[in-house]
Amino acid sequence: MRNPFELEQRDPGSLARAGWLTDRSGNRLPTPLFQPVATSASLKTLDWADLEKIGYAHVLMNTYHLVVDPGSELIRRHGGVKAWSGWRGSVLTDSGGYQAFSLAARRSLKPDGVEFTDHLHGGRHLFSPEFTLRSQLNFGVDFAMPIDVCTGLPAERRRVIKDMRFTHDWLAEQVRIWPELVERSALPAALPPVLFGIAQGGLEEDLREQSIQLVAYSGVQAMAVGGLAVGEPREDFLRLTEFCGQRLPEERVHYLMGVGDPADLVFAVAMGFDMFDCVQPTRMARHGSAYTRQGRMQLKNSRFRDDPRPLDPKCRCMVCRRYSRSYLNHLIRTGEHSAARLLTWHNLAFYLDLMKRLRRLITGGSFGRRWRGIYAELNRRLPDDL
Amino acid sequence: MRNPFELEQRDPGSLARAGWLTDRSGNRLPTPLFQPVATSASLKTLDWADLEKIGYAHVLMNTYHLVVDPGSELIRRHGGVKAWSGWRGSVLTDSGGYQAFSLAARRSLKPDGVEFTDHLHGGRHLFSPEFTLRSQLNFGVDFAMPIDVCTGLPAERRRVIKDMRFTHDWLAEQVRIWPELVERSALPAALPPVLFGIAQGGLEEDLREQSIQLVAYSGVQAMAVGGLAVGEPREDFLRLTEFCGQRLPEERVHYLMGVGDPADLVFAVAMGFDMFDCVQPTRMARHGSAYTRQGRMQLKNSRFRDDPRPLDPKCRCMVCRRYSRSYLNHLIRTGEHSAARLLTWHNLAFYLDLMKRLRRLITGGSFGRRWRGIYAELNRRLPDDL
Repeated sequence: MRNPFELEQRDPGSLARAGWLTDRSGNRLPTPLFQPVATSASLKTLDWADLEKIGYAHVLMNTYHLVVDPGSELIRRHGGVKAWSGWRGSVLTDSGGYQAFSLAARRSLKPDGVEFTDHLHGGRHLFSPEFTLRSQLNFGVDFAMPIDVCTGLPAERRRVIKDMRFTHDWLAEQVRIWPELVERSALPAALPPVLFGIAQGGLEEDLREQSIQLVAYSGVQAMAVGGLAVGEPREDFLRLTEFCGQRLPEERVHYLMGVGDPADLVFAVAMGFDMFDCVQPTRMARHGSAYTRQGRMQLKNSRFRDDPRPLDPKCRCMVCRRYSRSYLNHLIRTGEHSAARLLTWHNLAFYLDLMKRLRRLITGGSFGRRWRGIYAELNRRLPDDL
Repeated sequence: MRNPFELEQRDPGSLARAGWLTDRSGNRLPTPLFQPVATSASLKTLDWADLEKIGYAHVLMNTYHLVVDPGSELIRRHGGVKAWSGWRGSVLTDSGGYQAFSLAARRSLKPDGVEFTDHLHGGRHLFSPEFTLRSQLNFGVDFAMPIDVCTGLPAERRRVIKDMRFTHDWLAEQVRIWPELVERSALPAALPPVLFGIAQGGLEEDLREQSIQLVAYSGVQAMAVGGLAVGEPREDFLRLTEFCGQRLPEERVHYLMGVGDPADLVFAVAMGFDMFDCVQPTRMARHGSAYTRQGRMQLKNSRFRDDPRPLDPKCRCMVCRRYSRSYLNHLIRTGEHSAARLLTWHNLAFYLDLMKRLRRLITGGSFGRRWRGIYAELNRRLPDDL
């Protein structure tokens, strides 16, 4: 299996790293990398041209959603998810296991996969190790995730162990069948796609350590940590992010799934993580919330009705260069969908800018001295917060 | 009063004309001109950067909506509706009389104006001749419309006459106070704003003729025909559009309010009209309908699920260059707001392209020979129509 990651520089004062991730076309994505979530091959409220203008060249999509609609065979017939949807950047797909548990009805965990009834058309599906990989290869993605069991928290240790066994058994099966499935895949590219491994283990440090070791030796060259940021207390999230970050093989990419708020990202980068994805910037935008250098701002608040300033006076994004808080507040108040789009645009620009800034600090050697201050600043909440 | 219109060329085979309309900044807008409707200083689903990219430099906004929210004083304090909203093109505002009748509650027609309760905040308003002009001057618009009474059809002749009296009395009043209001207006520009006059008269030819004459001699230099395309039978619409088109003073701009579908525009251009506005392209987009050279297409239809072609293979807009019918159908099916935005983008690009094409035919001298064929083609409905 191919290792898509190249380590450029280590921060001397923390576990942070700057690096590059190479997709199937040979394009290099800078890390730390935030992946916008384009669930069903569409980033809510934006189109791909918007996303390119903001500066993104990579998105995360969900296998669950794409299998449910329009189906992986249709996408394959249209030349893969990029040709079909018009997206020209690179793509990582989640395996769909998480959504099968969080969105679907009548789900059951079986030795051969997750069986469920989908939330959209009510169809019955079995997401087996082979099915999820074949689907992702039909999509022609750059980075594929294995199906796993993301244990809901809080959970008893017994449950965590049981779920972990599924995760590990399925990973072994997926590593075994991957080369032949890739071989048979109809969508060629300059480089082969990359399969990640996902470590689970709930909030138990010894189980996390076991899982990381097992994934590290499974044959995959790209490492993800799953099952955090799923509702556990913040101190547990911080503790386990640190614990896991310290134990991941250095020469591979480290993906912390489902994370997070800007402050979380700063913390996780300091703990050695390179890749992230989260619906927060896009979901909060649809609820009227904008991220700024001083914390989060709820634009619905009537105090912005007459405020001529941009969302974040230091931001250089299209929205901040053109629109005032007063006008954005008016768009929200009058129910215009474009309000959600403009806030989504700004929030994603804010995230991209944050990742660039962190990367510069790492390559400039000052990340270790600076990250705690940035973390504290971003962790503030403005008085007009939700 | 300033005449903003310059006639460039008459079509030898019809009443069609190509010309130029000059806004307050001295920018020249080509006619025939379709005005996208940006009701509350926002074009539904798009932002101004989108509209500029499509190629529009002019929009119509509604005084009713802007007075109700955020109010004309707030807009004045922020330097007018352009500075406040970030729109850099030119603006015409409807007077709000039509919306007071179609949207508001507890409305009453009084000699001094239209009194109503607004649909958004439930505030009580009196749109008097002076109030509507002052509001529009507070907005800093390029083109202002007088308050009038748009008679709902069908209507008895007696009613049409009664409404027309209000329209004419108010116009006289508005022409009288206009110079002083402009003088006192706080938002200066290279050229003074232009006040239109609106001719009414229902479906009665003799009343239409009277009203046109009265407006022509009222002192305004820009002529609008209102009260058509308000639900009357199509043959009446065509008959009266032709009747009015033949009677408008040639050296002034002719604005047919609230029109229309692509085929209607071709007909009205042939009858000598220069300016139009209509919510059709944007509203139909939000209902999943796209305009094409072969008629209208309902993208929700499952026959498009697997269709790799663009909306209109001859269209060069961003949407047609990038997205397939299959992907757009998927966006609609999965409830993504971006579907409405992309269809709105295409429909407005389609309208702009149509107006450019008509203008080229006029300046090339072949409009008179060609318009009936184009009209018939656009008037077709695809089998998968709504």
